[in-house]
Amino acid sequence: MSERVGFVTMGESEGRRDVPIVGVGMLGYAFMGKAHSNAYRKIPYMVEPLPAIPSLVGICGRNEEAVRAAAQRYGYHRYYTQWQDLLQDGEVQLFDNGGPNDLHAEPCIAAAEAGKHIICEKPLARTAAEAKTMRDAVKKAGVKHACAFNYRFVPAIRLAREMIERGELGRIYHYRAVYLQEWIMDPNFPIVWRLKKAHAGSGALGDLGAHIIDLARFLVGEPKAVSGLTQTFIKERPTAGGGRDTVDVDDAFVSLIQFENGAIGTLEASRFAGGRKNHQRLEINGEKGSIVFNLERLNELEVYMKESEPARQAQGFRQVLVTEADHPFWKAGSTRSSTSSPTSLTPSSTRGTLLPTGQRLKTATGQR
Amino acid sequence: MSERVGFVTMGESEGRRDVPIVGVGMLGYAFMGKAHSNAYRKIPYMVEPLPAIPSLVGICGRNEEAVRAAAQRYGYHRYYTQWQDLLQDGEVQLFDNGGPNDLHAEPCIAAAEAGKHIICEKPLARTAAEAKTMRDAVKKAGVKHACAFNYRFVPAIRLAREMIERGELGRIYHYRAVYLQEWIMDPNFPIVWRLKKAHAGSGALGDLGAHIIDLARFLVGEPKAVSGLTQTFIKERPTAGGGRDTVDVDDAFVSLIQFENGAIGTLEASRFAGGRKNHQRLEINGEKGSIVFNLERLNELEVYMKESEPARQAQGFRQVLVTEADHPFWKAGSTRSSTSSPTSLTPSSTRGTLLPTGQRLKTATGQR
Amino acid sequence: MSERVGFVTMGESEGRRDVPIVGVGMLGYAFMGKAHSNAYRKIPYMVEPLPAIPSLVGICGRNEEAVRAAAQRYGYHRYYTQWQDLLQDGEVQLFDNGGPNDLHAEPCIAAAEAGKHIICEKPLARTAAEAKTMRDAVKKAGVKHACAFNYRFVPAIRLAREMIERGELGRIYHYRAVYLQEWIMDPNFPIVWRLKKAHAGSGALGDLGAHIIDLARFLVGEPKAVSGLTQTFIKERPTAGGGRDTVDVDDAFVSLIQFENGAIGTLEASRFAGGRKNHQRLEINGEKGSIVFNLERLNELEVYMKESEPARQAQGFRQVLVTEADHPFWKAGSTRSSTSSPTSLTPSSTRGTLLPTGQRLKTATGQR
Amino acid sequence: MSERVGFVTMGESEGRRDVPIVGVGMLGYAFMGKAHSNAYRKIPYMVEPLPAIPSLVGICGRNEEAVRAAAQRYGYHRYYTQWQDLLQDGEVQLFDNGGPNDLHAEPCIAAAEAGKHIICEKPLARTAAEAKTMRDAVKKAGVKHACAFNYRFVPAIRLAREMIERGELGRIYHYRAVYLQEWIMDPNFPIVWRLKKAHAGSGALGDLGAHIIDLARFLVGEPKAVSGLTQTFIKERPTAGGGRDTVDVDDAFVSLIQFENGAIGTLEASRFAGGRKNHQRLEINGEKGSIVFNLERLNELEVYMKESEPARQAQGFRQVLVTEADHPFWKAGSTRSSTSSPTSLTPSSTRGTLLPTGQRLKTATGQR
Repeated sequence: MSERVGFVTMGESEGRRDVPIVGVGMLGYAFMGKAHSNAYRKIPYMVEPLPAIPSLVGICGRNEEAVRAAAQRYGYHRYYTQWQDLLQDGEVQLFDNGGPNDLHAEPCIAAAEAGKHIICEKPLARTAAEAKTMRDAVKKAGVKHACAFNYRFVPAIRLAREMIERGELGRIYHYRAVYLQEWIMDPNFPIVWRLKKAHAGSGALGDLGAHIIDLARFLVGEPKAVSGLTQTFIKERPTAGGGRDTVDVDDAFVSLIQFENGAIGTLEASRFAGGRKNHQRLEINGEKGSIVFNLERLNELEVYMKESEPARQAQGFRQVLVTEADHPFWKAGSTRSSTSSPTSLTPSSTRGTLLPTGQRLKTATGQR
Repeated sequence: MSERVGFVTMGESEGRRDVPIVGVGMLGYAFMGKAHSNAYRKIPYMVEPLPAIPSLVGICGRNEEAVRAAAQRYGYHRYYTQWQDLLQDGEVQLFDNGGPNDLHAEPCIAAAEAGKHIICEKPLARTAAEAKTMRDAVKKAGVKHACAFNYRFVPAIRLAREMIERGELGRIYHYRAVYLQEWIMDPNFPIVWRLKKAHAGSGALGDLGAHIIDLARFLVGEPKAVSGLTQTFIKERPTAGGGRDTVDVDDAFVSLIQFENGAIGTLEASRFAGGRKNHQRLEINGEKGSIVFNLERLNELEVYMKESEPARQAQGFRQVLVTEADHPFWKAGSTRSSTSSPTSLTPSSTRGTLLPTGQRLKTATGQR
Repeated sequence: MSERVGFVTMGESEGRRDVPIVGVGMLGYAFMGKAHSNAYRKIPYMVEPLPAIPSLVGICGRNEEAVRAAAQRYGYHRYYTQWQDLLQDGEVQLFDNGGPNDLHAEPCIAAAEAGKHIICEKPLARTAAEAKTMRDAVKKAGVKHACAFNYRFVPAIRLAREMIERGELGRIYHYRAVYLQEWIMDPNFPIVWRLKKAHAGSGALGDLGAHIIDLARFLVGEPKAVSGLTQTFIKERPTAGGGRDTVDVDDAFVSLIQFENGAIGTLEASRFAGGRKNHQRLEINGEKGSIVFNLERLNELEVYMKESEPARQAQGFRQVLVTEADHPFWKAGSTRSSTSSPTSLTPSSTRGTLLPTGQRLKTATGQR
Repeated sequence: MSERVGFVTMGESEGRRDVPIVGVGMLGYAFMGKAHSNAYRKIPYMVEPLPAIPSLVGICGRNEEAVRAAAQRYGYHRYYTQWQDLLQDGEVQLFDNGGPNDLHAEPCIAAAEAGKHIICEKPLARTAAEAKTMRDAVKKAGVKHACAFNYRFVPAIRLAREMIERGELGRIYHYRAVYLQEWIMDPNFPIVWRLKKAHAGSGALGDLGAHIIDLARFLVGEPKAVSGLTQTFIKERPTAGGGRDTVDVDDAFVSLIQFENGAIGTLEASRFAGGRKNHQRLEINGEKGSIVFNLERLNELEVYMKESEPARQAQGFRQVLVTEADHPFWKAGSTRSSTSSPTSLTPSSTRGTLLPTGQRLKTATGQR
């Protein structure tokens, strides 16, 4: 019956041959592992034309019961409790590292040596030196690689980037960005790995600041000089075992930045900004216009264009809903800009790869 | 000493001769009387060129102690406790009626007969019939007259009107307006004159609805048909004397409207909208664009213009700060539109005068 | 190797036995078919504990090439070009109707007769009478059934419902809702099935109005009386073939509503509101507080609570980000409210089923 | 006739004896001179109980025609073209200096020596040293004195201060403030006195930054350390005479701040932020809550209070309309806090006087 065609038949159709399958091996399942798994499942829904169909080969975590449940839930074929085993799985072509910061370098370097392509969560490493060992490894191995600065792919940020590249803002004068959260304001919130330098490398700086530093480079350009200061408001917290432990990372940082192109800016991140859930807000003022983005309203971009027509008397910041057919990630848009080959996993307009992004920001980050 | 010139000398200068003095007699001092007094004092600060300098001749109220204090405070030369006395004051050229609704018709008609120009607060009268007697009186007397639909003079509304008149929104499709307050939500809020039909004529309809009906006519056009319903949520309230009295006016109304030009709309007013202090919000959607105004942000006009340039991908509602040099009420703007003679008290673009504005809205207002 | 466990093994675990598989047959692939397919794929990511894992059995559409591509992209096992064939697929347990309005009744009734559970897109039917035939069929068949009023499941709407049910707003006074779009404002936009009464039943009323009528019932209660008017601004449009055809559905409607509980309201929908992309905005004012929801900011609920503590002087509408751990759809929340059996497809708090929701709204909808 | 009482009689009443008259001498009429004149005229309307009634004795400016017109318009009794003459006017009790920055020190010091009370516009002086000479003079003379940091008196700022003083925010962690304008972005905008160091002292730093530095001290506390950088984007501009001249002040500055109480912050001001008209925005995050103020919405204060009741699930930033009866500057409020004697011209809660406010901010301001 010609109208009833099974999946196998469909697999032999032209359509199928055009779309490569990429085997994914995921490290972590709780937070980023869960988020990335969802993203892999949504690619066919979101991206047109489809560059690849992810095959969820294996997922790895230390708690066997939990990782088994995650595998079932998200549809991974297998699970592992040792990342070394995941890397030996021959069907894994892409290694996705969603583990804690102190588990970035070793598995990524091993994956590169095993010939896997790599996506690694940010901050890439605990120090610039550690990050450099990772970059050296992927360069040597010749694998594709990307650090998960995912906010570059928010449609509103994409639109901002396109507008800036087309010169619609003109020369850039100002960049000001904050990334504000509130999740450790309670003094009784316990010590977790994110609050220990040995595991996390830094606090708000690497966790939140990394994103707004990355977006500074993505949208404005390379920094020339920075200065900054960090602050730890609550210096000791309870441990799970009933004791007390020292917080040795920053609760917040503030920073000034000069860009190579003459723009100046401020950057700030904090985990002590009450009422701010995931408040990444940036504003760019240019010669011809300004933009504002706030992650808590992630479908919107505020745009000011000087003396737009018609209605010359009615100038002001526009609340642009970046959800329309002429915006990034709709079919027309993505087709137009998709010049990369179907197997390219790194979007062509992503500058940042496994380069230690913090490298030039020595003063601000202290990640030597 | 030529650099030291007293006020008397200055009074003889050219400048002085150009600006007529208008003697003002104010009825009421507590709410609208206070607000209008402030407005008269601010005219020299706000309006350029100055059409007239108000002279605060007299103020009238029933409580002698209070009206005397008000006269001192706002700078009135005299005070009265009977409006009949105020009208006999020969220096009063303009009678401003800021009294309660049941004190509109008689003093205004008497003032017209006495040859005074008239400004009267809204709602003009308790019924359309009563309003018509006032209009007949001022027409017969030939005096200047205006009903205090003051929101027409908010710069943002002014800009909206100018944009619509220039055709920047094209054909109008929709008008939706609400006027929401919350001041009588407490069931223990006592009976006041505004809650009694004999004094107020109506409730939210005349007090709040009158403004959005007026702005409908000012911005969109004349209505062709309306339908509506009123509601009284709390039907009995305590009196000052410890008893109970019936609320016989509406706490809220909702209404549909068809305009002569084919637009349709909704109108609503309520004193039971918790959190809304003075929330007069209107939205107009036209063929080429849309506008939104909210009195609680009275310096702003939200404007949407389809496909404006530059930045074609970045369309959206703009938050226009109507505070700039090319906006109404700055010097350039007011000069440009000031075609009226210096003694004209009624702005040339104000359509509404002592005409019973509710007259055509019989079904909606029930002001027969 | 104990750390390497294949999917089959995992399937035998306790976890697997707890989660039933439900076979889905989808009618339509372009708009709602695509959206629902994405939703089925996301259930394991979003819902905790997992009530069921959807198995994407088959998808049906008239264009074979397109439906085959959709099946591949979204992961359906088979595709069909006749809905009758889809219904004969023994693995399909749940029939999901995402077809145009004139393809709702017949396939749904046939599916009920075939013993399939049913989800059908809104508006359920073109007339109340047609809807009633569907409801009679599902009742007779005893299958589970739901009409896809999906906005009930937005976390912010869920929170609004919970707050109202807990009495946090007190007695409800006002409901005002608009659903505004702009997609047919261009007079050259061609005739499509949504603009023809024979296919769509109605225009903005059924397409957009259905949602805000449903939310009125979900959040406030049953209506007692309504009145309304519809308007078609552009009465003739080009056809694909180069001709002209009449638009015989409404471009917009406005309506007044009285609820059984004494609240009053306004409802409005339009496809001629420039700048409004998917602007479903509703406001509810109650005795103790108010809420506002706007679908264009779907993660937010504006909430006003009278005299909240601390900071009594600082009352105002709060922008609540409904994204936190104590909000609907996070694990704790969903566990707490999940009293339904794992195979229940209809959330327990959904009042609306295949009942002809428009039935009581005769005047407003004219769907006799 | 007892109901007709002239102003003279009223002057003899008890009410009159309670309210002292203060004779005002104003330097400047164009910008601040105009604004302050309006303020003096509005005091009787705004402040209850009335601490004093300003008598507009004299106004001074260099252009005789313009200053004469201003005197007439605002109601000054006399005008002067030399400030020395204004200071010799025996009826002037309060000298208000609204002149350019290089005309602050000499007239203020002379006024102090003449026994006049003093209000001086900000920035107080061009350098900290110059400011100190002014402070020494007023201290020696024993006159009352204030620098016109007027934003302290915005009701929303007042409410913020009261909330902080009552401990409603708890310990303060963060202060971030920007003051953004756009008025010199056009490269053809000519050289004016504000762009020359000899006249203005500094650019955005003194003009705009002074306000957010003052509010930092008013709301958070004294700074312990600062660092900053300034930038001049357009270094040369046309002169009125057709030539070119160098801009030797800052177009923008960015700065970091550490407070004595452990809070950290960022401060920034710019005249190159397109779309920002008068965008002074500050955010304070404390242990128990946060506040945001934006001068472009000056009637509002955004307030976040952790875990407020009722509606525990509905936390978020509130848009507080600071216009209500329990807010600063309404009668109840001002009565409650008015502990100063009726002749006190300096509000009791104003910390800042003629003290050189920039003194501690050496690094940031470089005003040595």
